[in-house]
Amino acid sequence: MTTSTTPATAVQGLPGLMMDIPLTVHFILEHAIRNHPRREIVTRRYDGSSTRFTYAEFGARVAQLAHVLAELGIAPGERVASFAWNTQAHLELYYAVPCIGAVLHTTNIRLFPEQVAFVLEHADDRIIFVDDTLVPAMHKAIAAKPSLAEKIFVVMGNAPHEPLPNERSYEALLSGKPETYAWPTVDENAAAVMCHTSATTGDPKAVLFSHRSQVLHAFATAFADVFALRQRDAILPIVPMFHVNAWGLPYTAIMCGSKLVFPGPRMDPESLYTAMAEDSVTFSAGVPTVWLALRDYLKATGKSLPALDRIVIGGSACPPALFDDLQALGIEVIHAWGMTEMSPIGTVNYKKGELTNEPAAARRARRLKQGPFSALVQWKVLDDDDTPIAQDGIARGELWVRGFAVARQYYKNDEATAAAFKDGWFTTGDIVTVDAEGYMEIVDRSKDLIKSGGEWISSVELENTLMGHPLVREACVFGVKHAKWLERPVAAVVLRADAVGDEVAIRAWLGERVAKWWLPDRIVFLDAIPRTGVGKFLKRDLRERYADLLADA
Amino acid sequence: MTTSTTPATAVQGLPGLMMDIPLTVHFILEHAIRNHPRREIVTRRYDGSSTRFTYAEFGARVAQLAHVLAELGIAPGERVASFAWNTQAHLELYYAVPCIGAVLHTTNIRLFPEQVAFVLEHADDRIIFVDDTLVPAMHKAIAAKPSLAEKIFVVMGNAPHEPLPNERSYEALLSGKPETYAWPTVDENAAAVMCHTSATTGDPKAVLFSHRSQVLHAFATAFADVFALRQRDAILPIVPMFHVNAWGLPYTAIMCGSKLVFPGPRMDPESLYTAMAEDSVTFSAGVPTVWLALRDYLKATGKSLPALDRIVIGGSACPPALFDDLQALGIEVIHAWGMTEMSPIGTVNYKKGELTNEPAAARRARRLKQGPFSALVQWKVLDDDDTPIAQDGIARGELWVRGFAVARQYYKNDEATAAAFKDGWFTTGDIVTVDAEGYMEIVDRSKDLIKSGGEWISSVELENTLMGHPLVREACVFGVKHAKWLERPVAAVVLRADAVGDEVAIRAWLGERVAKWWLPDRIVFLDAIPRTGVGKFLKRDLRERYADLLADA
Repeated sequence: MTTSTTPATAVQGLPGLMMDIPLTVHFILEHAIRNHPRREIVTRRYDGSSTRFTYAEFGARVAQLAHVLAELGIAPGERVASFAWNTQAHLELYYAVPCIGAVLHTTNIRLFPEQVAFVLEHADDRIIFVDDTLVPAMHKAIAAKPSLAEKIFVVMGNAPHEPLPNERSYEALLSGKPETYAWPTVDENAAAVMCHTSATTGDPKAVLFSHRSQVLHAFATAFADVFALRQRDAILPIVPMFHVNAWGLPYTAIMCGSKLVFPGPRMDPESLYTAMAEDSVTFSAGVPTVWLALRDYLKATGKSLPALDRIVIGGSACPPALFDDLQALGIEVIHAWGMTEMSPIGTVNYKKGELTNEPAAARRARRLKQGPFSALVQWKVLDDDDTPIAQDGIARGELWVRGFAVARQYYKNDEATAAAFKDGWFTTGDIVTVDAEGYMEIVDRSKDLIKSGGEWISSVELENTLMGHPLVREACVFGVKHAKWLERPVAAVVLRADAVGDEVAIRAWLGERVAKWWLPDRIVFLDAIPRTGVGKFLKRDLRERYADLLADA
Repeated sequence: MTTSTTPATAVQGLPGLMMDIPLTVHFILEHAIRNHPRREIVTRRYDGSSTRFTYAEFGARVAQLAHVLAELGIAPGERVASFAWNTQAHLELYYAVPCIGAVLHTTNIRLFPEQVAFVLEHADDRIIFVDDTLVPAMHKAIAAKPSLAEKIFVVMGNAPHEPLPNERSYEALLSGKPETYAWPTVDENAAAVMCHTSATTGDPKAVLFSHRSQVLHAFATAFADVFALRQRDAILPIVPMFHVNAWGLPYTAIMCGSKLVFPGPRMDPESLYTAMAEDSVTFSAGVPTVWLALRDYLKATGKSLPALDRIVIGGSACPPALFDDLQALGIEVIHAWGMTEMSPIGTVNYKKGELTNEPAAARRARRLKQGPFSALVQWKVLDDDDTPIAQDGIARGELWVRGFAVARQYYKNDEATAAAFKDGWFTTGDIVTVDAEGYMEIVDRSKDLIKSGGEWISSVELENTLMGHPLVREACVFGVKHAKWLERPVAAVVLRADAVGDEVAIRAWLGERVAKWWLPDRIVFLDAIPRTGVGKFLKRDLRERYADLLADA
């Protein structure tokens, strides 16, 4: 392989005379423990207790873990899996594995057992680090694929559990190991982390992040107009560390010297509230579902989070009602968008200087968009004829991106690579508009768009409108085959606890807010909407379940 | 040359699968004009009028300039000099020259004519872009070195002037050129900008910044805990663009999409005030001297700058009295430190989370230090025995640094390179302390320390104390040969306008504030303190002028 990052045809010019220092995860680790040794990392455990370490102690444990990996014979380039919640031990893997030149494979704990087995086989992980509370899920994966029993399993935490094959204890392995390590110099283009996308169709696809892309992503997300992480922030990442690097926070937060508060396995609203309140968390990040639950908890209990300054919402579009409610609770909502293939940050919403005097309503509408593009990505939006769309906030097309932290292909999946990567661009599959000020808005996933009689209907817009109804907790809109219009929208709705709603009333309410031909042909009431491993609506399931709903329409 | 940034012995691991996109100045340009086309760039002209362009128009002019450079036959790697104030035309050079693969040589307009001639010869610039108001200074350089008359001179601006040899007009050259350019892909390790240090001893030494180092420097200075530049900021760089990239602002500000307000040649306090007030400047940066003058102007006129949120002070230590005065005027002062060899940012002062409850006096004392180290630099501080000092805020030693944006050698100067670069580190020549929280404080330049009877006396500390005296405007302390103590401190003092002071009174005042043996043996009163081209005290001159002052002591 070559370490060059410049095409062979590049202009060479006069060689610059700056130091040759690679952009590696090790740089972040060294900077953090050298400059912020007293900063804290807190992890809430399954039993409600917490661990509390300084960066200096964390650094010593990372070195111990590196010795463990070396002893277990992990070679540069080999894959090591994690199957874990957001914890300090998981963070230690985020550093020790890449810093010895190996690859951390963050495995999604919410996949079906067959999928867990698939991704572990696909990555060819030799060691699997498993949280104590997730051992039962790992047993199911092994049952689905008995050859997994040949792997080495290292269990993190001391909760009682049925032993795994070849099981080692994380703490026992670390115990007594030297607290420093002779770190190798790693090529900046070497892989650091592997993450499978949360597939809504087909097998999960793997993205292989390099050291360089991880560091550049950390740099660009520390910007004042992105996450604006400061050393004095206390950060609670709700977005899982198995979900595209927890949006980069394990690297960005440590590089910035911020205090980290990990929720561990307790992700219910009360546990999250307690973790945030006890450690004066100022910044958090997660998908809308979590914030919906936390909002309901705060409203129901009358509790507040005065230290919580701002939160990033991404993964799915933020429902406007949620945005308003959180702002009313004194929490600044930052809307963001990204994809696994983008490390993930693509856009983060901030207020542009040109819009200083924008009226409040227009400002709110703009803040609900996904935002201007980060310096990490170059972008274009193409219509069905591959022509760039007008940047007017109305015209829509598919978003294509490229950049320092964008994948150029999937790992060992030529078919998916050929489908998604074209002419040096990643074709996101997202249908978007971009307004004159550069604010991007996701209109839909291309496969989630509903085409009724040749005209597009946005499921996202219908969902957001429905979720503004006072009785509606969640809504998911999907396309169903229709004899006349080919496809028509159907809405699945989850009502708030104790609420009673009926289709006629909700349809009437909706009729005042959207075009008549956008009105869903049916509204079905569910107890819960099926979700992907990272909490996104699993529309495929609904489409299959209700495939014949409009058959006699 | 190789484009690799990784030593040959590096661990290669598994190749990452991210896009290969070089870190070049062109990336910043494209991002800015694509995402912030309506943002403004304002330049104040010599006659008090202003020009006002959008980023989109700026981008078109950069393309036109690239066509001009190509027409004039500038090849990749060739040097092109600027001799200019902070203006949009200068900014156009900052982009067009590196983006075609050539090297912009930002020449210090405050050097003596012989030094100007020296640096132009040393860089071997083929074209020299000169501000209209600086043509007389260029004539002097040509008089000092007649061979310079063979260069091509391009004059920017329309102020009347005596023609230079082979003179072209900047605007005439640009006029009618195409507004797009087929930019080449440039190697990220190729040189982008050359800058000579403002030498206080010997000939100026040249640092050759690469595209990669400029982009990484822009990334790291956009952090919330560094300059925290936001798109909605309006930035007035007072620090000159011929002085180590104006601390990177030409790249960082444009990457962040901020409004830029250039002061042009009018750097008096009233002109700076007017420029800041008329365009609601929120952020500025410059050396203490400028802020001293602006503070005096604001106090004398009773005017205020309500939009001005924060300023960065660097280049020399910020006198505590100036810090207090500016804070009292509602302007947040951010103390920073850097060097030409470091692109330049090394430290920027911010409040650490561990210090939330620090009492006000301790907080103020810490804010007056140069601050914690940026993620851009690795550092160590060595005492006379090359042993790392204790990190206690008391022990002092010489600061050594390395990093992504630190030079590895000077351009064509083996002697200076051998003296300053050791074992992969740049030896800064600064004597510093670092406290337990990582806040660095410059105690002195190693050559400015005064050694009295074997004990060190800090000239910086004496200067800061003197500048706290109500009658003292500026103070510069230097060492003078002494028969008994080998060296003793002497203070040169500039009083405030209309103030009357005498040596006895000031010595008595000082005696209450510093150790007795630190008291300067003499205080001499001057109308002005001699300065280097970038406004730093030129202690060498004072040492020479007063070399025999204590001869009969």
